[in-house]
Amino acid sequence: MGNIRQLKLGTVIHGVGGSTSGWRHPDMPSDASVNLEFYKQQAQKAEEGKFDFVFIADGLFINEKSIPHFLNRFEPITILSALGAVTKRIGLVGTLSTSYSEPFTVARQFASIDHISGGRAGWNVVTSPLEGSALNFGGKAHPSHPDRYRIAEEYLEVAKGLWDSWEDDAFVCDKESGVFFDPLKLHRLDHKGEFFSVQGPLNIARSKQGQPVVFQAGSSDSGRSLAAKTADAVFTGPESIEEAKEFYKDVKQRIAQNGRNPEHTLIFPGIGTIIGRTQEEAEAKYQEIASLVTIDKALDHLGRFFEHHDFSQYPLDEAFPDLGDFGSNSFRSTTDRIKHRAKEHNLTLRQVALQAATPRSVFIGTPERIADLLQQWFEEEAADGFIVGAAYPGALDEFVDSVVPILQARGLYRDDYEADTLRGNLGIPVPENRYSARKSASAGVN
Amino acid sequence: MGNIRQLKLGTVIHGVGGSTSGWRHPDMPSDASVNLEFYKQQAQKAEEGKFDFVFIADGLFINEKSIPHFLNRFEPITILSALGAVTKRIGLVGTLSTSYSEPFTVARQFASIDHISGGRAGWNVVTSPLEGSALNFGGKAHPSHPDRYRIAEEYLEVAKGLWDSWEDDAFVCDKESGVFFDPLKLHRLDHKGEFFSVQGPLNIARSKQGQPVVFQAGSSDSGRSLAAKTADAVFTGPESIEEAKEFYKDVKQRIAQNGRNPEHTLIFPGIGTIIGRTQEEAEAKYQEIASLVTIDKALDHLGRFFEHHDFSQYPLDEAFPDLGDFGSNSFRSTTDRIKHRAKEHNLTLRQVALQAATPRSVFIGTPERIADLLQQWFEEEAADGFIVGAAYPGALDEFVDSVVPILQARGLYRDDYEADTLRGNLGIPVPENRYSARKSASAGVN
Repeated sequence: MGNIRQLKLGTVIHGVGGSTSGWRHPDMPSDASVNLEFYKQQAQKAEEGKFDFVFIADGLFINEKSIPHFLNRFEPITILSALGAVTKRIGLVGTLSTSYSEPFTVARQFASIDHISGGRAGWNVVTSPLEGSALNFGGKAHPSHPDRYRIAEEYLEVAKGLWDSWEDDAFVCDKESGVFFDPLKLHRLDHKGEFFSVQGPLNIARSKQGQPVVFQAGSSDSGRSLAAKTADAVFTGPESIEEAKEFYKDVKQRIAQNGRNPEHTLIFPGIGTIIGRTQEEAEAKYQEIASLVTIDKALDHLGRFFEHHDFSQYPLDEAFPDLGDFGSNSFRSTTDRIKHRAKEHNLTLRQVALQAATPRSVFIGTPERIADLLQQWFEEEAADGFIVGAAYPGALDEFVDSVVPILQARGLYRDDYEADTLRGNLGIPVPENRYSARKSASAGVN
Repeated sequence: MGNIRQLKLGTVIHGVGGSTSGWRHPDMPSDASVNLEFYKQQAQKAEEGKFDFVFIADGLFINEKSIPHFLNRFEPITILSALGAVTKRIGLVGTLSTSYSEPFTVARQFASIDHISGGRAGWNVVTSPLEGSALNFGGKAHPSHPDRYRIAEEYLEVAKGLWDSWEDDAFVCDKESGVFFDPLKLHRLDHKGEFFSVQGPLNIARSKQGQPVVFQAGSSDSGRSLAAKTADAVFTGPESIEEAKEFYKDVKQRIAQNGRNPEHTLIFPGIGTIIGRTQEEAEAKYQEIASLVTIDKALDHLGRFFEHHDFSQYPLDEAFPDLGDFGSNSFRSTTDRIKHRAKEHNLTLRQVALQAATPRSVFIGTPERIADLLQQWFEEEAADGFIVGAAYPGALDEFVDSVVPILQARGLYRDDYEADTLRGNLGIPVPENRYSARKSASAGVN
């Protein structure tokens, strides 16, 4: 981790925004969540800023209280594929749930995006926090939090196995002899586990980066444990540098305990930057965003984390209600934090709801101040990189135009892409094909 | 069906080709099946030729005997999405199986492609002919042929229901009042059927063309029946104009019997054109393609239609073996035809295998001859349009450059796109949202 260690950057593209009321901003196109041009512009701007990746989040259940962006948005596999055709170097990372999908299909789709993009695909493995998801997929009970993580672990084992179906040099394509592939380099997985039975092989070759990059975002104990076992990169949502450092240290330790190299799993706190020419201008922007939120929408939004609980039944200006264990099978780390903080700071329901609707990031200020904070977080091992959320229209442009040049001038960030694959830019190795590796080992090759 | 009836055109893009040995052609890029540039060029060439759509086929099971293109190819949802970002007017149609997927996800993905492309998505609904597919999706028994079609019918009912989750004008997006959508125009499906339980609503709006266009390709009785009930367009693979006319008449009758308008479901025979400046040049091209096939590969290819049956166990130059009912749960219409023709013409195994590997299309000749044949098939009601397969590299370019201008000069084919949606170009109506329709009906509006 010497002088050459540089921070990495990703950005979330989420149409009309990840908040209840961001869509009301005067500069926000109302159809941004299903507007290819909007996604393309954001991705191309991030690429101009030499970002490692764009990220597309997802969810599998809505009701009338869901925030606007969740109601009507692109499905991640499709929009990532589309962006793969109109970008050249930037990584393409999307959320897909292991609780309501088939590993053969999902392994195939991410591998296919990896081929479309020339080795730039990444998969954010989630387990679907919302109980309602089950209702859209057969109506059986939503698996418990621990079961979802056990399913996810086996699912990833299957997906990674399928991605190795073909050794890198399996496709000989000798037109003269008529040999298209070497049958010794084609491998059936024959997986039979607790949750999945998948024979294989996958009907697509390994890509230029070997396998898509695996991201993970769970912050609970099960989530951290899964990340430590399987992830190449981890998203996290800390509210302070202290929290970020605790997470960073803990996850890196767990990775080492699993016998993996902690430098090859990168940790990305998500941050919402609000940039102004002066601190006052930045603060004014924050107030403008916060002013778009009504208390009704804030209560709905809060409810979503608690299995769409109806918070309008409680008095607004009394202490946040005692919900007991409620919400623990859903966004567990988020609900735990909300409850904990409400108690610690004696917050009212109104305060909790408005804060949740417009989280006040610490990354508010001039470009220099943002760069200082990023540098501090990076150097103090709170982060290997950051995933920058666009808190308002134009936020990404401002970041690329004003913060990136400062980071570059300080030597903290690349001037140009090092590679044309996502792994190459992130500086994490291409995993060796498991079958090639076994052959090398049995042949006594080191 | 007066003067203005014009024929429609689609093309299959299938990388190194739909045959065992087409990849050996000197002009074929060996990696065409996973090469975005190749797909992009084909799609853009078809768009230059004002084609209605490009089509991406699919399969869910391979083994070492599969043809080259099946071993290593793009997954349809991903490549269609990518092509959506680099084309403007052409439709994007892909195969997806209802036997091994979730309707909520698939409805969403096609709707998302529909938004990415501005209303150009189409879904070729298949039921997965290959028994082996089951081994990649949990290992339970592959559903029987009739069951697969019953599943498909309910699946389509669910998908179409989900596509109507939002009425066309549901998203009000009034920034001033903070009203993003009209809750009276959001509808839960609450489907509970024999095979599926799906609550909804879908988390994406209806597109510009209302719903993706539904294609169907089964030629068996169950296949024709499903097409008659649900399809907007039907693919078929006739070997003669007589066979095509029988199919056309039968399916159009079934559509009318289902109370649907036969003019709103279009029938597309798949044809492989081989074009030369003279008939001799075209014949020489056919011979060149046929010469690429070895008998071993031809036997493997034949075996695939019969559940990967090993045909190398039979003598090559004796009568085609009697297989009884074998193969009837897979590609039923194809295997029935192969058996029937072998018997009728006393063919040897070698003859059957080589013919299956390099089918001799009737569409071989000069551009004028091809145009004459297309006109005849179209005017004699053997076809509403054609899906043109690229039998060799450059075949699509030749068709667009030499056949299309003749069809245009004869007034049989468009000079430019009539619309910017696939439905608009195909001339089939936008389906009214079922909930809006009910409201209009109950309000006494006609």
